[in-house]
Amino acid sequence: MSVLIVGSIAIDDIRTPAAHYPDLLGGSASYAALSASYFAPVSLVGIVGTDFPQRYLDLFRSRKIDLNGLEIANGKTFRWAGEYEADMNKRQTLHVELNVFETFRPRLPSGYESIPIVLLGNISPELQAHVLSQTHRPRFVVADTMDLWIMTTRQELLELLPRVDLLVLNDSEARQFTEEDNLIRAGRAVLALGPRYVAIKKGEHGCILLSQDRFFSCGAYPLETVQDPTGAGDTFAGGLAGYLSGQNKAEVTFDDLKRAVVHGSLMASFCVEAFSVQRMVGLSEKEISQRYDSFVAMSHF
Amino acid sequence: MSVLIVGSIAIDDIRTPAAHYPDLLGGSASYAALSASYFAPVSLVGIVGTDFPQRYLDLFRSRKIDLNGLEIANGKTFRWAGEYEADMNKRQTLHVELNVFETFRPRLPSGYESIPIVLLGNISPELQAHVLSQTHRPRFVVADTMDLWIMTTRQELLELLPRVDLLVLNDSEARQFTEEDNLIRAGRAVLALGPRYVAIKKGEHGCILLSQDRFFSCGAYPLETVQDPTGAGDTFAGGLAGYLSGQNKAEVTFDDLKRAVVHGSLMASFCVEAFSVQRMVGLSEKEISQRYDSFVAMSHF
Repeated sequence: MSVLIVGSIAIDDIRTPAAHYPDLLGGSASYAALSASYFAPVSLVGIVGTDFPQRYLDLFRSRKIDLNGLEIANGKTFRWAGEYEADMNKRQTLHVELNVFETFRPRLPSGYESIPIVLLGNISPELQAHVLSQTHRPRFVVADTMDLWIMTTRQELLELLPRVDLLVLNDSEARQFTEEDNLIRAGRAVLALGPRYVAIKKGEHGCILLSQDRFFSCGAYPLETVQDPTGAGDTFAGGLAGYLSGQNKAEVTFDDLKRAVVHGSLMASFCVEAFSVQRMVGLSEKEISQRYDSFVAMSHF
Repeated sequence: MSVLIVGSIAIDDIRTPAAHYPDLLGGSASYAALSASYFAPVSLVGIVGTDFPQRYLDLFRSRKIDLNGLEIANGKTFRWAGEYEADMNKRQTLHVELNVFETFRPRLPSGYESIPIVLLGNISPELQAHVLSQTHRPRFVVADTMDLWIMTTRQELLELLPRVDLLVLNDSEARQFTEEDNLIRAGRAVLALGPRYVAIKKGEHGCILLSQDRFFSCGAYPLETVQDPTGAGDTFAGGLAGYLSGQNKAEVTFDDLKRAVVHGSLMASFCVEAFSVQRMVGLSEKEISQRYDSFVAMSHF
């Protein structure tokens, strides 16, 4: 079954000490949709301007992503510019231009309302709620969030959480959100706010998944070099939601979620191996299944 | 088969904002020996003074730990005093008295030289080498180390490493030792110095194990409260070496080491649940096997 993914679509401009990459495809929905497309049919909901390069529309189509929910509005696409330090771990935002994204108010195309798996990618919780309100009791709802929304739209995020099955956030965000230093307590504090599950991303330390009574810990794939961490979290959420959709299950169990978290992690490990979405294009089934086998070997004992 | 464990044996004095615990059993060999004793017969090599409480000798004996290698010297036992902040994560050393440990120069009792598994607990690499030189080609040698030795006796540590099968250290020590920020690169840099395997402990993020061509990642057991992290690393090394000994294998494989790392982690998760070695006494087989099952459930997918 298919997965509905809403989020931002951006044109990124990235500088490193060695090079300058203009006009890269970016945004939470771009990474998530490409990642999910390896596991299930994707219906993308987002907005771009008339300047959005045809080659990126073609790229989405090459991955069979349904673009009926992609609005092409008069004006310029959301733009983000950032600069990395030599080790690629420290990033500074140089410039943000919301452009057409500022007035994004999606109306789901007919048929989208009954898509069973929904990924509310990293955008404001108010927009996430707006999209969720147009759906008809989806089987499973994943929401991603970030420090910006925790700080600026906390109330809207709190209102969204009881309507969400799984919240995805990173370790510093979980601590910031709950004011709990211990990550297990932070995870339980998130669960007390409404979602049935929470996944806390820990970068090089992997990811943990909690429900009221179960726990899962997934290590990170061992990488000696990270080329570009941009979009790794979105790719994780997309791989996770895409995997769940591809399972075609009437009900999502904790064991399904474990494997979904592993698939999110393995897609994120591909993502950071190259700039922008480069590695999210043209992955083979063999590459994915080999990396899955690596996760089994590095986790099972 | 049995395991030889050498390290420090101390009397600890620990203060918290709420309480003062004097005369606790401490030291790397104490934690490691008690931890290992749940899996194999332990032969302890260490030194204490004539002030060493009889109840702690009885405690070692209650765990069937062979004390033929324990020297009781004229003078006082090694003493350490520390103070924890309210969250038990920050510790300050208030006082160190080496006492009889200052002249520790162990001679292995007859029969100890052929014990197949050797754990060189956290003491100076020079002392570790001195003990190792008295053994006859042990089947597997584990060495633990810490920032102090990396800083003050780097050359001695470098000379020891090619004689060691597995080096255990924590993440900040691995980075400090190798000057590599990426933990996978740090691990590979350690392997290049001689040991066949390296285990890097990451506290709440678990532990990773590397060989030239294999990788394993073990999550930490989810604990909402840590009572006392003192000795967790020693308990990890002891559980690991004890488990290997209990397996009675002619050769230690990477798969054996995976399970050894899991047993080290699960023993460390008990250790931090209470002050000093309290939790390392009187654990039942059922408690250990239940926690092992929890590690399987939280790691396998």
